[in-house]
Amino acid sequence: MTKENFKITPWEIEGEIDYNRLIKEFGTEKITLELLKKMGKYTKEIHFLIRRGVFFSHRDFGLLLDEYEKGKKFFLYTGRGPSGKVHLGHLMPWMLCKWLQDKFNVNMYFQLTDDEKFFVKKDLTLEDTKKLAYENALDFIALGFKPDKTKIIIDTKDIGLLYPTAAEIAKKLNFSTAKAVFGFTNETNVGLIFYTCIQSAPCFLEDKMCLIPLGIDQDPHFRVTRDIAPKIGKRKPVLLHNMMFPPLQGLGGKMSASDEATAIFTTDTEKEVENKIKKYAFSGGKDTLEEHRKLGGNPDIDVSFQYLRMLLEPDDKKLEKIYADYKSGKMLSSELKKITIDKINTFLKEHQKKREDARKIIDKFMIK
Amino acid sequence: MTKENFKITPWEIEGEIDYNRLIKEFGTEKITLELLKKMGKYTKEIHFLIRRGVFFSHRDFGLLLDEYEKGKKFFLYTGRGPSGKVHLGHLMPWMLCKWLQDKFNVNMYFQLTDDEKFFVKKDLTLEDTKKLAYENALDFIALGFKPDKTKIIIDTKDIGLLYPTAAEIAKKLNFSTAKAVFGFTNETNVGLIFYTCIQSAPCFLEDKMCLIPLGIDQDPHFRVTRDIAPKIGKRKPVLLHNMMFPPLQGLGGKMSASDEATAIFTTDTEKEVENKIKKYAFSGGKDTLEEHRKLGGNPDIDVSFQYLRMLLEPDDKKLEKIYADYKSGKMLSSELKKITIDKINTFLKEHQKKREDARKIIDKFMIK
Repeated sequence: MTKENFKITPWEIEGEIDYNRLIKEFGTEKITLELLKKMGKYTKEIHFLIRRGVFFSHRDFGLLLDEYEKGKKFFLYTGRGPSGKVHLGHLMPWMLCKWLQDKFNVNMYFQLTDDEKFFVKKDLTLEDTKKLAYENALDFIALGFKPDKTKIIIDTKDIGLLYPTAAEIAKKLNFSTAKAVFGFTNETNVGLIFYTCIQSAPCFLEDKMCLIPLGIDQDPHFRVTRDIAPKIGKRKPVLLHNMMFPPLQGLGGKMSASDEATAIFTTDTEKEVENKIKKYAFSGGKDTLEEHRKLGGNPDIDVSFQYLRMLLEPDDKKLEKIYADYKSGKMLSSELKKITIDKINTFLKEHQKKREDARKIIDKFMIK
Repeated sequence: MTKENFKITPWEIEGEIDYNRLIKEFGTEKITLELLKKMGKYTKEIHFLIRRGVFFSHRDFGLLLDEYEKGKKFFLYTGRGPSGKVHLGHLMPWMLCKWLQDKFNVNMYFQLTDDEKFFVKKDLTLEDTKKLAYENALDFIALGFKPDKTKIIIDTKDIGLLYPTAAEIAKKLNFSTAKAVFGFTNETNVGLIFYTCIQSAPCFLEDKMCLIPLGIDQDPHFRVTRDIAPKIGKRKPVLLHNMMFPPLQGLGGKMSASDEATAIFTTDTEKEVENKIKKYAFSGGKDTLEEHRKLGGNPDIDVSFQYLRMLLEPDDKKLEKIYADYKSGKMLSSELKKITIDKINTFLKEHQKKREDARKIIDKFMIK
């Protein structure tokens, strides 16, 4: 499958995504330098995930900043479908949320969609997905969100909060539209057909603008929400889209929590990380040492490098040096992999400690 | 529209229903004398609504009685879609529930589907249907249910209790089946598509058999539930179907809470009842007094008589005398109407008092 022939829905990604084409097809806007400047007025620095274009697209983020300028507040919302363990790719939007919460001092809602994953995954019970929801919540909390400004929503537990708003949306969404947006068929179960309304509901938890940092694959849900919002007298949520974190095997597709060999999980041991990167991480290096030294590697398709760029190395200078050294052939694939392994393991050592500590404070984040 | 060409779904009835054909088409069973005998072992008497065939059809009621004989308990469940005021027709299954609760000393759940009516009725808000739910609950309570054995469920309020079970059902129901059973189209909103799962959920509130007295028009919902129950390790609910209470205008269709002139509401005044019966109640009498005296009336199509038979006159002897007198021409339509008006007003006087008293105890029936 080539860039000309990729597929992206909230539940499936195939082929190598052409992000520029996606902006056109989805009808989103590119994040421009002007927008960064506008944001910089409040944040001073720009988070590296935005600076480097990992967050590459948006809907109405300029409008949100204009409103903010006029003194209007917003709140943050993102989520996670608990179908398995959390992998590094999941952390991208959460990290940006944490940064935005710190910069703007705003409330944050984190939705764990145990119902969705139950509807989608044949072999998972509701008990499974709910248990995974609690486990996944630990990774979110570990990133340092403020308990007094952050609430975690677990769909089946907190449905009382969501359902009346979901019903408002559901009344305005017919099967025809849902089918067109999500690619449903007559065989799709009615739980999943209704589900998008549950994912929309947190957008309206506060009478403020809602800002959602999220993977571009989730955009269809909020395209629906944005269409319907004015019809039910609500504001359209504002979106900031990140690119998909590549699986170890290379740039096509996305990491899958259900395939151990495609992703680094936050609970992986040092040894597992080392083995996975060495064994699976797609390399942009040349076939032989001689060739590599002579022609150089390709960091743009090298998964280890992309992990540094998209998550692990916030320091632009260091990253640029690695890029240049690898491209020139000065740095070998094994050396690049070593850097990435060390970076991941340093990060995970700290993260895993905070993740365990999160068990003690998770109650503070729960909706009573 | 003739008997050959009627239509019946949970949301629409057109034409005069052929109940025998319905038993065949829906695949239900006729309530037989043998079944009545089996029930009579526990109830001694047989409720007039069953005796007279107003409850005419069932699913697995024999099985329930066999299980009961072996010492296995059951619970009762029925409901109401709060789209307007309660009319006399709504009371039929509730009265049977009250009788069954007394006879078998079992728990009862009454579901008010404020979400459903919001999805179906273009002009009703969720606030409207929720308010109507509380008003409708008063009529239910007024019939004398035991507060310690009876719980009222309001969907949007009690969704936390229903959603996990609804989700189990939803995962096993695809659009294709929902479409075939309910006649959905691509224009149907996704709230209504999912909704049947919410109506199914109370069937599994207790780990016992569930008995549902209900209008035959609601059968499609539970046909779906019964198909899915074994797939999620649950028992199929047992159904007792009543015929539809005829609108004032005659035997085609059903009373509509949204059309004032088709129904007697439980909150109607004495004068309103009198006017409605006099003005609208379809008469089986002849065009002239002479003809009526000579040829007699037709009680089988006379709405006033049917109201006595289907709700208001439990005494078989009295009813038979009215039937004979009207059929012979001895009783005039005006006299029959007078009897019905008096019967309704006597009933409503008492009911309206109990209905107001219910406001003081409604909390006892609510799920905390």
